[in-house]
Amino acid sequence: MSARVLIVDDLFPNVKLLETKLSLEYFDVLAAMNGPDAIAICEKGLCDIVLLDVMMPGMDGFEVCRHLKNNPVTAHLPVVMVTALDQPSDRLRGLDAGADDFLTKPIDDTALFTRVRSLVRLKAVTDELRSRAMASRDFGMGDPLALATAETGLNAQILMVEDRRASAERMAASLGQHHVVTLEADPHQALLTATDHAFDAILVSLDLAGFDGLRLCSQLRSLDRTRSVPLIMLAEPHDRSRIMRGLDFGVHDYLMRPVDRNELVARVRTQVRRKRFSEVLRGAVQASMELAVTDGLTGLHNRRYLDSHLGTLFGDAIARQRPVAALILDIDRFKSINDTYGHEAGDEVLRTFAERIRLHTRGIDIVARYGGEEVVIILPEVGLPEAQLIAERIRERVEMMPFSVQRATRSVGVTVSIGVAVRDPADVSAGDMLKRADLALYRAKAAGRNRVEAQAA
Amino acid sequence: MSARVLIVDDLFPNVKLLETKLSLEYFDVLAAMNGPDAIAICEKGLCDIVLLDVMMPGMDGFEVCRHLKNNPVTAHLPVVMVTALDQPSDRLRGLDAGADDFLTKPIDDTALFTRVRSLVRLKAVTDELRSRAMASRDFGMGDPLALATAETGLNAQILMVEDRRASAERMAASLGQHHVVTLEADPHQALLTATDHAFDAILVSLDLAGFDGLRLCSQLRSLDRTRSVPLIMLAEPHDRSRIMRGLDFGVHDYLMRPVDRNELVARVRTQVRRKRFSEVLRGAVQASMELAVTDGLTGLHNRRYLDSHLGTLFGDAIARQRPVAALILDIDRFKSINDTYGHEAGDEVLRTFAERIRLHTRGIDIVARYGGEEVVIILPEVGLPEAQLIAERIRERVEMMPFSVQRATRSVGVTVSIGVAVRDPADVSAGDMLKRADLALYRAKAAGRNRVEAQAA
Ligand SMILES: [Mg+2]
Ligand SMILES: [Mg+2]
Repeated sequence: MSARVLIVDDLFPNVKLLETKLSLEYFDVLAAMNGPDAIAICEKGLCDIVLLDVMMPGMDGFEVCRHLKNNPVTAHLPVVMVTALDQPSDRLRGLDAGADDFLTKPIDDTALFTRVRSLVRLKAVTDELRSRAMASRDFGMGDPLALATAETGLNAQILMVEDRRASAERMAASLGQHHVVTLEADPHQALLTATDHAFDAILVSLDLAGFDGLRLCSQLRSLDRTRSVPLIMLAEPHDRSRIMRGLDFGVHDYLMRPVDRNELVARVRTQVRRKRFSEVLRGAVQASMELAVTDGLTGLHNRRYLDSHLGTLFGDAIARQRPVAALILDIDRFKSINDTYGHEAGDEVLRTFAERIRLHTRGIDIVARYGGEEVVIILPEVGLPEAQLIAERIRERVEMMPFSVQRATRSVGVTVSIGVAVRDPADVSAGDMLKRADLALYRAKAAGRNRVEAQAA
Repeated sequence: MSARVLIVDDLFPNVKLLETKLSLEYFDVLAAMNGPDAIAICEKGLCDIVLLDVMMPGMDGFEVCRHLKNNPVTAHLPVVMVTALDQPSDRLRGLDAGADDFLTKPIDDTALFTRVRSLVRLKAVTDELRSRAMASRDFGMGDPLALATAETGLNAQILMVEDRRASAERMAASLGQHHVVTLEADPHQALLTATDHAFDAILVSLDLAGFDGLRLCSQLRSLDRTRSVPLIMLAEPHDRSRIMRGLDFGVHDYLMRPVDRNELVARVRTQVRRKRFSEVLRGAVQASMELAVTDGLTGLHNRRYLDSHLGTLFGDAIARQRPVAALILDIDRFKSINDTYGHEAGDEVLRTFAERIRLHTRGIDIVARYGGEEVVIILPEVGLPEAQLIAERIRERVEMMPFSVQRATRSVGVTVSIGVAVRDPADVSAGDMLKRADLALYRAKAAGRNRVEAQAA
């Protein structure tokens, strides 16, 4: 994946060297000579990844990284820290600041290019999601980016696939302080476990006895159930070419043995944060789409949802010659509740009414608020006797217990009239069935309310 | 990117050979020995890419490909056709059937792996979008996948970056039969043109005089404005390593010189379809998010939108000490319109009312249907005198011209009362301002309706 790489370094020759290397690999290169400039470029959305020098006068690399990772606008940008000395403490400080990786000067070109490409590809996959989520913010759904950025990456479910017992237990002990760790020595069993449970990250040893751990990684990256779970390889220095291969096909990170326990904790946490970042964004998009078909007051589906689903459902019932029933429910003398107890009490009644209906309907039923105090229920695979039974049960449940209003300081008796109809072989569309249910409702009202009436046979 | 590759071939040794090669590269491999089995696997969502033999008894590869590409459930799967003979006519039939590429046996391994990886990576980027769009279908927003699949890939805007005049004109003539083609010989100018206009595909010669065309491709893939535009390289056989490089960083396809005009047309069309496929899905997700904050009847924003935006807007006005005004509009005697002319006429009046309001508000204003016949308008940066003027103008516009109802067979005179308020330094929240506007509206009604009243000074 081509990408815009921002090089941040206070020394011009360092910038120049990296720029030349990356340009030859067809990356687009930008440069900044200090932290504030780098942050400004990132905030303007001008780059896809940051190569960040640690030692800079003024704002150092750690501070720049922390700043980028805590700002919702830039938190999704991968940051690779570059340092002259391979000090474990520096490494850790960088990872703690939220860096995605750490490279030591002089930089190994293959490692650099592989890492940059891998991080940029992972970013590309979530970019679309991010821009949808940003749109949901524009539509007034709160700020999912801020929420996603605030994720701590703790209390995660971790799967560790490792057959060296001592090593596994040592790592599990470190991770266990922040997460729940599942150990699995057998790679075949691990694949099953991974698809059966929702893990937040999976660590895979590349040196399992008689099995190429990289193959497990590839399978996990391919399966629908596991492809978005971050993978971290546990590798020996001699595994270098397989590490590069893994990063190339989508493994997220790796740890070199002997594994430093602090680095282990830091890298796992970074991956968990990344995964949850995506999940928060996905959830925001999903939620804002659900809102479009949800009635704000009762949480039932709205008329838009009913209108768009009923046709398909009814056509399906016709094609397969299956029964389907419609109930139209209308709260009796609802206007007088509003007039007597106020508008807010009316709203409370509607909410409670919706809750009681929910108790008597199934996941496959459509339950939609149709108008003010009117609710339509569509029951697939349900014939007239059963539909009448369900209607009668709802009517009873409404009548039986008074509705509490005005913050439970008062209660009011409520009844409901219900019209029932089922699909007739002569029906051309769902509208025909609804019309009969509406007529039945009319008769229920005319006959004194608080009744269920079914269509004429 | 790791992926599940489906190999479709009627001869077992062919399946075995490809399987071995792909497994060694850490792909997950599935196999089918005939068309119907292949289609079933694809429909179940079990693979990410299809390598499809042309010659098979019964259903041949072309038919399988056409079937996959015309089914909304499988249309997004990349298909690479594999044939024993490199017949241009076969090639063309495959591309016409919607295939993404064509490989000739014996298969060149590098070409195979590069192609599969490139197609799988492009797919990964749109997978997230596709699953959001599928959710929007579940929420009853129509079927964006079917719409996206029906896209023809014709009438596109094509940019061709080529400095060989004769060649450019020949290709432009072929493409010009289906698309609008812009020719550009200078790569620097081409970058500017590409970012300034919305192209559906860009062809780039790799052999521009004194310039590496691949660099232009990389820049186009990196820039926000152009990164989703499909790129096709025009290459010489000796450019092979650069072609692989290009595919590796995200160029979508290539054509070998001398360019076969039919293949040119077919490949461009495939890329345009792919781009529009994503656009339709993106549009569907966007539209379903917009619905959540839109009033279905009038197309104005709904109360949910007002509630979630007003706080921010008002807080901003406080912080920057800027004016902001609120108008509450209520149609006079709306109930009697409903009673006299029917509910549908009432709806027509509301729609026309909304249209007239739109004519007198700006893009930055919030215009929201607040309740039945009540609309709230928030005017940032507007003080009391100007707000009164705007309100008066709307009042006049409503009164001046009768509203046509019952499909323009009748018309009815409508008037509106409007309450106006502006932010006061003592206001703690927007609710304070709205309360004053509501009081002003009350006075307008009490004073005989069809009036604008502003808050007491
Ligand atoms: Mg330095
Ligand atoms: Mg064959």
